[in-house]
Amino acid sequence: MIDTILLNHGSGRGLDELLHTVILPEIGIDSAAPLEDAAVFTLPQGRCAFTTDSFVIRPLEFPGGDIGKLSVCGTINDLAMVGATPHSISVAMIIEEGLDVALLRRILRSIRHESKAAGVSIQCGDTKVVDRGKADGIFIATSGIGIVPPGRNLSVANAGSGDAVVLSGPIGLHGIAVLSAREGLNFASTVVSDCASLHRCAEALLRASPHTRTMRDATRGGCAAVLNEIAEASGVTIMVCENAIPVPPEVVGACSYLGLDPLQVANEGRFVAIVPAEEAEAAVTACRTVEHGGGACIIGTVEPRGRVAVLLETAIGSRRVVDVPSGDLLPRIC
Amino acid sequence: MIDTILLNHGSGRGLDELLHTVILPEIGIDSAAPLEDAAVFTLPQGRCAFTTDSFVIRPLEFPGGDIGKLSVCGTINDLAMVGATPHSISVAMIIEEGLDVALLRRILRSIRHESKAAGVSIQCGDTKVVDRGKADGIFIATSGIGIVPPGRNLSVANAGSGDAVVLSGPIGLHGIAVLSAREGLNFASTVVSDCASLHRCAEALLRASPHTRTMRDATRGGCAAVLNEIAEASGVTIMVCENAIPVPPEVVGACSYLGLDPLQVANEGRFVAIVPAEEAEAAVTACRTVEHGGGACIIGTVEPRGRVAVLLETAIGSRRVVDVPSGDLLPRIC
Repeated sequence: MIDTILLNHGSGRGLDELLHTVILPEIGIDSAAPLEDAAVFTLPQGRCAFTTDSFVIRPLEFPGGDIGKLSVCGTINDLAMVGATPHSISVAMIIEEGLDVALLRRILRSIRHESKAAGVSIQCGDTKVVDRGKADGIFIATSGIGIVPPGRNLSVANAGSGDAVVLSGPIGLHGIAVLSAREGLNFASTVVSDCASLHRCAEALLRASPHTRTMRDATRGGCAAVLNEIAEASGVTIMVCENAIPVPPEVVGACSYLGLDPLQVANEGRFVAIVPAEEAEAAVTACRTVEHGGGACIIGTVEPRGRVAVLLETAIGSRRVVDVPSGDLLPRIC
Repeated sequence: MIDTILLNHGSGRGLDELLHTVILPEIGIDSAAPLEDAAVFTLPQGRCAFTTDSFVIRPLEFPGGDIGKLSVCGTINDLAMVGATPHSISVAMIIEEGLDVALLRRILRSIRHESKAAGVSIQCGDTKVVDRGKADGIFIATSGIGIVPPGRNLSVANAGSGDAVVLSGPIGLHGIAVLSAREGLNFASTVVSDCASLHRCAEALLRASPHTRTMRDATRGGCAAVLNEIAEASGVTIMVCENAIPVPPEVVGACSYLGLDPLQVANEGRFVAIVPAEEAEAAVTACRTVEHGGGACIIGTVEPRGRVAVLLETAIGSRRVVDVPSGDLLPRIC
């Protein structure tokens, strides 16, 4: 029985034991089958989407998820945002000597559960162990392959004047949940991260709004970062309406207490879509019929490029610039 | 000008600056093009090979390479070992606050150089920054996609009695080079790592020996680990001949000084192939015509399963078991 990860588990018989008694069984891979240097499989027809992300979140577990769930959702969402159907993922783990194996098992079970629920197969993986004090528990890097159906050509540069801005649900929950867990802050109620796989919601939106210009999940830097990226890449100004943006009361409270702008707080289960105005209602209605899209709404419009990239019409009718934070409001949020 | 990585470079405008002034230009990606959440491209016909690896080597630079070159070669080699033509890679970096940007630039240039030389495109990437003391300079996770030509079905479980064991070149150079660089050991001459992309050599071998059973690059655990993996998965005994195994004199010297077995020392540019006896000469000849295959030779034979997995016939005619090290001889060798 391995209770704690030792440097010894990074190679040779130690790694073999870790793989066959902990990693493969918990992640749900047949540990009797031979392990090849690469997985080989047939992809469905279509263009290939490919993405990668590493996850360094602290703490490793938080209300609504853990680094395992986050790593699967994050990669699935990046595929979903280009209109791809997620197909396969890889999981590479860098583990610090001393990691509690009970915690590792919980993380691996989250990876298994989330990938299974999403219908994505874990095709390959890698495990490294580094000396105590040279990492922070565990880092996970996931990559994903998806298939893009014909005719879909989404790009952050495709937004145009007159388009509508759709948001898939209430914002700020991931950032506040992680911050609360990290700092031991107690707000009135426990804030639960929105961490979720969005491919089904994205697919519903794309079917209802086939001329969608771009979609982007609002992770690091929150909605503010995503809206600025789209506005800059497309050469437009995006105008969003504060009254239209759903911010849960617990996020409002925490942000006002901490001096944060909810638009800059990270999400892990929300996306922004830019759609033609005439398809916007259908897009919202479609999102609302599926999981993680129940709070979808129209939050603004795309206008010809003005002086600034993103403007917010506040609840009291004034306008302010929505800027990108200069650095991390909250380091290691994902 | 960014001289040193700060936590601030992990998000928002700080990340944007790091990406556009350092990472994208050095890695050779057009930094004016919009960055999407995932790359979308058309793969050539054929089955898809998919692999991932993370690299935690210490020191980050060593004679013959650095973590950047290693991360590209390692992933290309895993694809090559299943008979795939490498097509695309992803690069995810976890950077410790305080990393010298001059060093980061050298690493990025190595990634660019090695991927370009190998004809593989860098399709996507990710950058995270963690606080000082929570990583070790930089960790890199790469994933790769390749295309497997029809009719190739290599597997570590396919070795059969009567097959020949081919080794692509002299062993032990990577491990000894890294150990020397790490510990400041001075051997008579500088030992240079064998770190290299092996897809062209593997392709040459597969064309000359179309019934090749399996190939595996001899990284962590060296040839000893690979031979044991093949023998166990295939239910055979592998007999190798000490006199036939090329070990450079500087590796012999270092191993005898340090009490290491050259068969257990890691390589990053050598592979073992199991081929039908009648194709073995052609396989060796083909390897010798291409880069990184000049030292190819036949080192043994596959026999029906006996009491042990791998046996070595020593130079003096005795036999000893070739075992897998119980843990890391040398932690963080890749």
